[in-house]
Amino acid sequence: MISPTPPRPRPRTLAAELPGLAGREVTLRGWLHRTRRLKALDFLVLRDRSGLAQIVVAAEAERALTARLPEETVLEVTGVATASPQAPGGVEVTSPRLTVVSTPAAAPPFDLFRPSVPAGLPTILDHAPVTLRHPRLRAPHAIAAASVAGFRATLDGLGFTEIHTPKVVGSATESGANVFGLDWFGSPAYLAQSPQFFKQAMVGVFERVYETGPVFRAEPHDTARHLAQYTSLDAELGFVTDHRDVMRVVREVLAGMTAAVRERAGEACAVLDVALPQVPARIPEIHFAEAQELLAAHTEEDPRGEPDLAPAHERWLSQWALREHGSEFLFVTGYPMAKRPFYTHPEPGRPQYSHSFDLLFRGLELITGGQRLHRYEDYLRALAERGESPEPYAGYLAAFRHGMPPHGGFALGLERWTARLTGADNVRLATLFPRDLHRLTP
Amino acid sequence: MISPTPPRPRPRTLAAELPGLAGREVTLRGWLHRTRRLKALDFLVLRDRSGLAQIVVAAEAERALTARLPEETVLEVTGVATASPQAPGGVEVTSPRLTVVSTPAAAPPFDLFRPSVPAGLPTILDHAPVTLRHPRLRAPHAIAAASVAGFRATLDGLGFTEIHTPKVVGSATESGANVFGLDWFGSPAYLAQSPQFFKQAMVGVFERVYETGPVFRAEPHDTARHLAQYTSLDAELGFVTDHRDVMRVVREVLAGMTAAVRERAGEACAVLDVALPQVPARIPEIHFAEAQELLAAHTEEDPRGEPDLAPAHERWLSQWALREHGSEFLFVTGYPMAKRPFYTHPEPGRPQYSHSFDLLFRGLELITGGQRLHRYEDYLRALAERGESPEPYAGYLAAFRHGMPPHGGFALGLERWTARLTGADNVRLATLFPRDLHRLTP
Repeated sequence: MISPTPPRPRPRTLAAELPGLAGREVTLRGWLHRTRRLKALDFLVLRDRSGLAQIVVAAEAERALTARLPEETVLEVTGVATASPQAPGGVEVTSPRLTVVSTPAAAPPFDLFRPSVPAGLPTILDHAPVTLRHPRLRAPHAIAAASVAGFRATLDGLGFTEIHTPKVVGSATESGANVFGLDWFGSPAYLAQSPQFFKQAMVGVFERVYETGPVFRAEPHDTARHLAQYTSLDAELGFVTDHRDVMRVVREVLAGMTAAVRERAGEACAVLDVALPQVPARIPEIHFAEAQELLAAHTEEDPRGEPDLAPAHERWLSQWALREHGSEFLFVTGYPMAKRPFYTHPEPGRPQYSHSFDLLFRGLELITGGQRLHRYEDYLRALAERGESPEPYAGYLAAFRHGMPPHGGFALGLERWTARLTGADNVRLATLFPRDLHRLTP
Repeated sequence: MISPTPPRPRPRTLAAELPGLAGREVTLRGWLHRTRRLKALDFLVLRDRSGLAQIVVAAEAERALTARLPEETVLEVTGVATASPQAPGGVEVTSPRLTVVSTPAAAPPFDLFRPSVPAGLPTILDHAPVTLRHPRLRAPHAIAAASVAGFRATLDGLGFTEIHTPKVVGSATESGANVFGLDWFGSPAYLAQSPQFFKQAMVGVFERVYETGPVFRAEPHDTARHLAQYTSLDAELGFVTDHRDVMRVVREVLAGMTAAVRERAGEACAVLDVALPQVPARIPEIHFAEAQELLAAHTEEDPRGEPDLAPAHERWLSQWALREHGSEFLFVTGYPMAKRPFYTHPEPGRPQYSHSFDLLFRGLELITGGQRLHRYEDYLRALAERGESPEPYAGYLAAFRHGMPPHGGFALGLERWTARLTGADNVRLATLFPRDLHRLTP
């Protein structure tokens, strides 16, 4: 009853493999990226997932065919890999036989072969299924994929377990205003703003957990750095001494992500001219109170007494860390409790401050984390102090009723990291199909 | 400004590391899993993420302390690793000094140390943050984590790129009835039932893509195998000859997942006595029409003319594959077009059948996949034949207007795989915090 294996098509060569195959017959498959017609020759550029390949068409019959082929035609090309100093990678394909696999029904909204992108953001996003084919618009997503792989590999190596938690929850506990509501078989429900409660509960099960998944914020912000859905890279670990144990894991994760981008997305980094950061063995850190003193002494403003840092302050501190410590990363620790969620662990001896941190990267907050409360009675007290009933938190608090170790964790927004790394001026360029205040398609 | 490193606590030994450390002083941290009081000694069992460790308490002062400690107390134990033939792993901890890290405020709903779980499903699920600590209830999730790692590693090795796509969409196109609706800043929106359209569009960008993320089905089914949110492992690849190229990737993925479970979740497999399947070099396959002939010839029923297989037929075919081919996996190919989505590629020469497949595993459908249409005009025709307007599909169809190669893909439900592997009789036992018709918490 097992059917015979159908005849296999010719083995495929990827564009990036051409340089090692000079003199051999090869079959490439991909999209017609560009056609340049000279007097006696046509140069075709074929695009596949690995990069670009140059095809030289000299025969009249083939030239008559190429004259009719629009860009983005899907082609199979069989020919001879031929050394040529002028070709990209030093090898091009000559004497090609062309087979049309699929013909486009329309032209892209702009030429995909131009080195820069000749269009504005709305055009790029409205036509994402085709504009993402542009090498510069595709590259950030190769970098994002490599980054997530590095995140997971680092944490796997540190004994973490991956989890998958609900994205729909029964109460809007974390921050009531900015949630999406929905109807769940007749009951009110909400899209999860973070896996915070679940990952903390799972410390009681696996001690060290991570999740890489979507989170939802119904924030009516129309800015270059806010999305209504983004990919949150979350981790949580038990048996910590304090938030510094979490910061040590953050350091390893950043090093692992950077290394994975270097190894797995080198071509994308080259396309975008990405300068990968050095991750120091120990990332410099400064306490929130010291940071305010520094800002008061060296800038025109006096932020002392403010409960948070303004974006301009974050940029100044980032530059300070680069100048003083040669680091593109800076931990700011000890943020005031007033601005942190109720589950944050206060700083012993200075309870107006917390065992929390932000990580600044190239002027922007990239990661937020800290130590959490771990005793049930501390949770009841913290909620009471904020005038909140424990009732909507019952499922969450259950984990702490049954014995939990000191623990902490952090969250990193994947799109924000990718945008910062690639120098994108809008986080939407680091998101395949962004969702925001105004955008629900494609 | 860099703070001094705080004094480090004693290095921690995990329970699983004890066997190699006989004669050495060690510090364990974990949960008090069980206390057994004998006349002259107490035996404590400490649970951590790696497993269980036995602690022998003989000193009167320590025994007075252990008498007061409820199960699930978080403890630090420093003592001597001592060879003992009776201890699990052959090494126990003697002369311990105990430090209480955290005391539970309440007892679990049942004893977590019983070898089997003395509770029904509602109790298990209602108290998931603590019941998941039971080694038998925790184990499926270690197997799930290893499975996803194997899925990704296999596809990474085959040149796939990971993607992250929207979970909220503007039109309820895939199957109108069973979607969750929500309000998106004043516009109607829906939770995505699958990343189908996005992963197909991304074939035009990366050729080979995968996603591991949540999908949502508002199906009012109250069965042991349906969830309203589950984790879908999706892949899609371009430049295929037909659906068999997709099936070859499925075979590699299953082999990679099984190997990863063996390597990364051996302890969990031992706890649950999991027998991992052999993945044959070529998984047997049978065409839907042949399967119906077989069922008509060898069972009491005659399913010929039916457009789908009943669950009992799937079980019979699974047993047939095991008997005839020694395989716990079976591909059924060529399902009638009438029961497949509009984007399915028909079988050339027999257009009532399709280039699609299901993979049966131990009697149950585990994976669905196939070749898709790739020409724009074929999509327009397929929608027209089903009496549907192309309008709501405009964003999706854009990918095909611009040149797409023959492609196909598949989807695997993580929880269903894990449940089948672990022999769970309800998919909820393979889900950390299930969401269904009746359940929205914890």
